[in-house]
Parts: sequence; C-alpha cells; structure tokens
Amino acid sequence: MNEVNQPHVLAEVNAVFDAYEVALVTNDVAALDALFLDSPQTLRYGATENLYGYEAIRAFRAARPGKGLARTVTARVVTTYGDAFAVTNIEFRRPGEARIGRQSQTWMKTGDGWKVVCAHVSWMEPARAG
Amino acid sequence: MNEVNQPHVLAEVNAVFDAYEVALVTNDVAALDALFLDSPQTLRYGATENLYGYEAIRAFRAARPGKGLARTVTARVVTTYGDAFAVTNIEFRRPGEARIGRQSQTWMKTGDGWKVVCAHVSWMEPARAG
Repeated sequence: MNEVNQPHVLAEVNAVFDAYEVALVTNDVAALDALFLDSPQTLRYGATENLYGYEAIRAFRAARPGKGLARTVTARVVTTYGDAFAVTNIEFRRPGEARIGRQSQTWMKTGDGWKVVCAHVSWMEPARAG
Repeated sequence: MNEVNQPHVLAEVNAVFDAYEVALVTNDVAALDALFLDSPQTLRYGATENLYGYEAIRAFRAARPGKGLARTVTARVVTTYGDAFAVTNIEFRRPGEARIGRQSQTWMKTGDGWKVVCAHVSWMEPARAG
C-alpha cells in the first residue's frame, strides 16, 4: 500500500523539491509560500524560530532579509511512501558557517500539487566531550 | 482522501507518541528501536549527529549513555493526514540547557503498527543581532 520510492512518485517529489531549493536561495517568497500547505496545522521549526501555522510561516518569510540564503547541499535523501507522502532531508553548508545545516520536510500530495506540511531546519552542534 | 485529524487516527498516533516519549526518557532502547521503521531509508538527524538507515540509528541508541535524557515537553502538535501518515512535533526543555529543544517525527502506519520514518532533533539558537 505504501510502496517506497515508486519511480513516478519520486520524480514528482524530486521536481518540487528542486523547485523549493531554487526558490529558497533566490528568496522567491511567492514560490516558497506556494509550496507549503495553507493550513493552521502546517509548522516550521527554523534554526532560530518555531513557527506554527501557515500564516506565521508566511509572515516570517515576508519579513526575512533576502541575503545570506545561499547554501551548498552536501547530502540529499528523498523518500516517497505510496503516492501521496514523502520526506526530503538534506545536509547543507553555508559560507561563513562552520556547522553542518540540516533540513527535513514532510510533503503531502494535494489536489493543488505537493505541499510541505512540516519542516525542521537546524545547525548540528559538535558532540560534547566525555 | 487525506483527511486531517480523524479522531480514531489521532488517538492511535497520540498513543504511540506517548509510548515513544516514555521510552526515550527511560532509555528503553528496545522500545525505541521498535518504534522506528526497520528500513535503510529511515533517518534521524540528532542534535549532534546525522544517522542514515535503521541500523545506524539502532547502533547510536545502543551506544548512548542512558543518563541526562529527562526532558519536559513545553509544546506539542500531533497531526494526522488520512489514516496512515502523521507528523509529531514538540518543543522541550532539558535541565541545565538554556535553549529550547525541538523534535519532529514523521510516522507511517504499517502492518506492524505505526513507525517513525524520519526524525529531526535540534536546539534552537538565539536569533542573531542585526
């Protein structure tokens, strides 16, 4: 029922995920907004903020400075389950930042295309000694 | 098709999520292992590590000291989509740690019950000045 990585589903999700990455680094706010599900349940934990609901995410993007968003993806795993759910996970590096960034998103296919229902972005911290 | 928060689905996911939290703070490794999907696609980004595949996650848990895992959940959002997918997100506090912790999990219902297919845990950093 929830078959993993059916090629046609994986192709769809890779395409929207690629579009998201382009929109992010170019700060194309309209495109980013369009790729998140417009729902009060949608949430995004960012590196420095916890945003609950589509409106909070939209307001955050509208207010965010558009600079310093460039990044290099250093690991990428896209996995689909059935034909309507997927998770996308990447590691990334940003100029001037020593730590590894991580981004996780859960996607759902809707009548209006694939949408992110939940996202989490963070910096990995060094392991503690001892 | 992917109806949000149907009561019987929400009840199932809340129950397994509660069981996960108990297993985590008591370091019940067998229970934690049983709640993650045994698959090479399963992944977990932790505060200090990026783990790809069920075996890497299992090995990490087996090696982790069982102390210092206590935490207090300060925000919790469980959302189900249809009858086989869900996301669970919490904010938490840990003694001696000033930052807010965040944990995101994506769950899928399998023939063997609900399983985590993807998890991300991090500390939120203070917003940068300027």
